[in-house]
Amino acid sequence: MTSTPSIKDNNRVSLTDIDMPPTLLLGPGPSNAHPSILTALGLPPVGHLDPRFIALMNEVQTLLRYAWQTDNPMTMPMSGTGSAAMEATLANAVEPGDVVLVGVNGYFGHRLVDMAGRYGADVRKLMKPWGQVFTLDELREGLETHRPAVLALVHAETSTGARQPLEGVAELCRDFNCLLLVDTVTSLGGVPLFIDEWGIDLAYSCSQKGLSCPPGISPFTMGARALEKLHQRSTQVANWYLDISMLSKYWGDERTYHHTAPINMNYALREALRLVAQEGLTACWERHQTNAELLWEGLADLGLECHVEQEFRLPTLTTVRIPEGVDGKAVTRKLLDDYNMEIGGGLGELAGKVWRIGLMGYNSRQENVEQVLSALKEVLGDSK
Amino acid sequence: MTSTPSIKDNNRVSLTDIDMPPTLLLGPGPSNAHPSILTALGLPPVGHLDPRFIALMNEVQTLLRYAWQTDNPMTMPMSGTGSAAMEATLANAVEPGDVVLVGVNGYFGHRLVDMAGRYGADVRKLMKPWGQVFTLDELREGLETHRPAVLALVHAETSTGARQPLEGVAELCRDFNCLLLVDTVTSLGGVPLFIDEWGIDLAYSCSQKGLSCPPGISPFTMGARALEKLHQRSTQVANWYLDISMLSKYWGDERTYHHTAPINMNYALREALRLVAQEGLTACWERHQTNAELLWEGLADLGLECHVEQEFRLPTLTTVRIPEGVDGKAVTRKLLDDYNMEIGGGLGELAGKVWRIGLMGYNSRQENVEQVLSALKEVLGDSK
Repeated sequence: MTSTPSIKDNNRVSLTDIDMPPTLLLGPGPSNAHPSILTALGLPPVGHLDPRFIALMNEVQTLLRYAWQTDNPMTMPMSGTGSAAMEATLANAVEPGDVVLVGVNGYFGHRLVDMAGRYGADVRKLMKPWGQVFTLDELREGLETHRPAVLALVHAETSTGARQPLEGVAELCRDFNCLLLVDTVTSLGGVPLFIDEWGIDLAYSCSQKGLSCPPGISPFTMGARALEKLHQRSTQVANWYLDISMLSKYWGDERTYHHTAPINMNYALREALRLVAQEGLTACWERHQTNAELLWEGLADLGLECHVEQEFRLPTLTTVRIPEGVDGKAVTRKLLDDYNMEIGGGLGELAGKVWRIGLMGYNSRQENVEQVLSALKEVLGDSK
Repeated sequence: MTSTPSIKDNNRVSLTDIDMPPTLLLGPGPSNAHPSILTALGLPPVGHLDPRFIALMNEVQTLLRYAWQTDNPMTMPMSGTGSAAMEATLANAVEPGDVVLVGVNGYFGHRLVDMAGRYGADVRKLMKPWGQVFTLDELREGLETHRPAVLALVHAETSTGARQPLEGVAELCRDFNCLLLVDTVTSLGGVPLFIDEWGIDLAYSCSQKGLSCPPGISPFTMGARALEKLHQRSTQVANWYLDISMLSKYWGDERTYHHTAPINMNYALREALRLVAQEGLTACWERHQTNAELLWEGLADLGLECHVEQEFRLPTLTTVRIPEGVDGKAVTRKLLDDYNMEIGGGLGELAGKVWRIGLMGYNSRQENVEQVLSALKEVLGDSK
């Protein structure tokens, strides 16, 4: 026996309870969580193979299919934040050497490029200025040129506030025999989205935007064509945690243990999806559109300009150009310090050029629009 | 413009609130969460770049260093469950072709083998019957034979209940110029563990066992030698979500956005670690040992046999041999149905042969020992 070392107390800090003042989260996410979702999140956990938890998993899957408008059996949450589900789509669909064509018109297009490369893809980029979207002609030309195995597009670019129209894209992809992979992080629950009708083969999202849930769990769905590609792989999925061939055995009938599911995050997601189903997608999408239009009008009244053309503007996230001579960061800091209100700054190419205002899920409410407009008016008035 | 598809309601199920009866979770984890941790979990989220959240991130890191007895700057939680942190150690430490030697004496050794292979490692196995541990001589011989870049061992095998002694292993690893990677999933917070004193280069754990927190966030630490290997990689880390070279910029001074942190799980982890620091590791480890010994005595009184030799038995998790003629599954089902108490069945080689009883974190209490013993006595009496 060796002797036990003595315990060092240099990192044994003594802390008080967490004290987070209530903050109105009108940035690119996380958005405020619905109170009943926080209640669900704080319920006592049960085991990950408990029959009652398994019943809840089924409910999560069914409600997720409703929110995404899909009947894909392979619809389930990944046990991480949105980027984990993003990586799950690529890790499972891509084999080394596959050509993956990514539409890059914002920050998250670049992330798809980075991720796909790590799975050995031969990545090609279709570029467009940040804030613009791809036309069907541009996509057709890209498919013709690159003949990819996967086309990856961002439905709702969180960095630019642009909505990529998806009608007709799947038909193109089928013509060129490629899979359509779509980022719906900032659209699920807030923007019209039809996985099955639009022929989307792979999609991912997050919990903390349109679903009003805290971050930490992330929706994933995969259709029959993508599943076929998975089954025909000649190489193992190069990611254990996100390997759908194993995860599907836990989320499917076998209930084979893979990893310990984040029980409480599943409680929260179930409640978030229950609220979407209760309101109904029609009402939900209309509410997001109405409040966004209210915001856009108010911004115009303040003399502020939106970065994205109205036709392609997301109802969930609006990029606002920072006026000449205004210190954008000072404004966001003042909103946080004096108004307990968070809005986002620009990311990547748009850093320093725009603010990002999110009206997502529970936060898409008229009083929030009024509050952010009135706060902006005061802060911008002061800064002149 | 194309017309909008109509919304399908086939998956729009109408659900009531979640109803999970309080269950005593004495299986291999998740364990019951401490009530104050559930309170922290349900607090309203703030932004992942909010200065108040950044301050909380620092607190999590400091307290994690205390719990693990390390001063590693690169100590932080991964945004997933324990298997994500497990994969993070391998994804960052392993380059294709690296020889990785894994001590396999249980289910999680096999998992390390599987994961390491996905990162291109030339995996070698050191085998031992499930429930036994490796001697220093056996490890030396393994290092001599295989000359690995990484030696991976499981400190606390959740599938067997065995504690792998680690004293002296780091010295061997340094002699053979290899990194020491250790699974501390079922030891952190409950079993004496000294990352720095024992020279462990890479370790991972989970939240839902010794830390009494729900699953969904997972401690990770990496020392200077492992970091040097990361910096000298000639290939990119083959996992975006778990790439420490990027994550360290969010958890370090730069605060560069990587992915949206699971805010509420970080609240919960901070509270879990605060409770460990408040109690102190000495008291915490002693409590686990005392209650485990109470359990072992009680099991012996019931005529039940432990699977692991007492010297190497984990205080956090006990494997109990299912007596001849007893239907193990019927017993666990009855405990759950009639006693609202979960204990685990065997995994892998030990499936059908043992039960697994966890006394971890908040659950390591005398009344729980008494409760499980009395329930087992009744159920086994009935089943005779």
